[in-house]
Amino acid sequence: MQLYFLPMACSLATRISLYEAGAEATYIEVDAKTKLTRDGRNFLEVNPLGLVPTIRTGDGEVLTENAAILQHVAESFPHARLAPTDSRGRTRLQEWLCFIGTELHKGLFSPLLDAKAPEGARAYALEKGQSRLAHLEKHLTGREFLLDGFSVADAYLVTVLGWCVATPVDLKKWPALSAYVARLWKRPSVAKALSEERALYAEELARHKASA
Amino acid sequence: MQLYFLPMACSLATRISLYEAGAEATYIEVDAKTKLTRDGRNFLEVNPLGLVPTIRTGDGEVLTENAAILQHVAESFPHARLAPTDSRGRTRLQEWLCFIGTELHKGLFSPLLDAKAPEGARAYALEKGQSRLAHLEKHLTGREFLLDGFSVADAYLVTVLGWCVATPVDLKKWPALSAYVARLWKRPSVAKALSEERALYAEELARHKASA
Repeated sequence: MQLYFLPMACSLATRISLYEAGAEATYIEVDAKTKLTRDGRNFLEVNPLGLVPTIRTGDGEVLTENAAILQHVAESFPHARLAPTDSRGRTRLQEWLCFIGTELHKGLFSPLLDAKAPEGARAYALEKGQSRLAHLEKHLTGREFLLDGFSVADAYLVTVLGWCVATPVDLKKWPALSAYVARLWKRPSVAKALSEERALYAEELARHKASA
Repeated sequence: MQLYFLPMACSLATRISLYEAGAEATYIEVDAKTKLTRDGRNFLEVNPLGLVPTIRTGDGEVLTENAAILQHVAESFPHARLAPTDSRGRTRLQEWLCFIGTELHKGLFSPLLDAKAPEGARAYALEKGQSRLAHLEKHLTGREFLLDGFSVADAYLVTVLGWCVATPVDLKKWPALSAYVARLWKRPSVAKALSEERALYAEELARHKASA
């Protein structure tokens, strides 16, 4: 499996999941500005929208969209138990993946992180996001993970909540969320993925600064 | 199954899917402003975020989030073949559900339809959405549906593209998308659902006007 990724972007969730599974994979870094891979290939020929994560599966197919990729990874490495296998559990997993993707990632964090977002969009997203964070805070109070055990939804959630440090979202207001993030950051797959991608992110910033 | 819906909102996709399946269901209308059901119950007690679609399954469980609900409906009524049952097909379905939910619904249409969206957010969403519509146009050129046959992803897509009439998104620019929408609007399940919800939407507007 090949994973096209941007350092510290939502593709981090796929890396965490692959580490959880102990899977063999090739990690191909894409430059956020040029959309070139580090060896100079045009990522837009792989995914014309230029979005990560994008994977090339073992069968050579290109697959996009976080929820689909994460469920594919879970299904490809069943020994890692990254997704429930019963019908009810799968449905609950899909519910969380959709909530994280639409309400948190796109609704709350995309406007906060997008340098081109129009004036006012950040304050609006921040205000609207409070009820979503409160909902999550309530769910995670007294729970270790979103579902019964660690799943790809946790890989996605810890990735998204990690963006708080670069936004005005103050996790200290939400004790269960703060504890969840602190706990997951200590999990070996998450710690390894974060440490590697933080370094790559710093390198990317330095490259962009040098070429500016 | 009970479906909590707002007329012409994204919950329309669930209604279309239930009609496709010939399923027995109760449709409970929620008022967009008061969040009360038509018989005066507080919808926020069912879903504290007040979001539709929300369903109560046959087992009495409350389920939220469009992608999860649509896949649950497909799984509950397998005779209707609303979702592929093979692994590859399920993954492609999840890819489209996620694309429609994040890139079209949340990324493009939510800012366009949200009366409280900040100045500039509409123009920004419209500009960013062009590449997403172009991607869809390319995929649907020469195809009848998103996948090999009608699926819950088509129910979601025709719902979302139906919002074009209330936004500056000009479907005439995209011939394959225009033809897709025109074709699906003639499909019995879609035609029935649209006709009913358009009437309910007009009634809702009249109620809000009368109480203003």
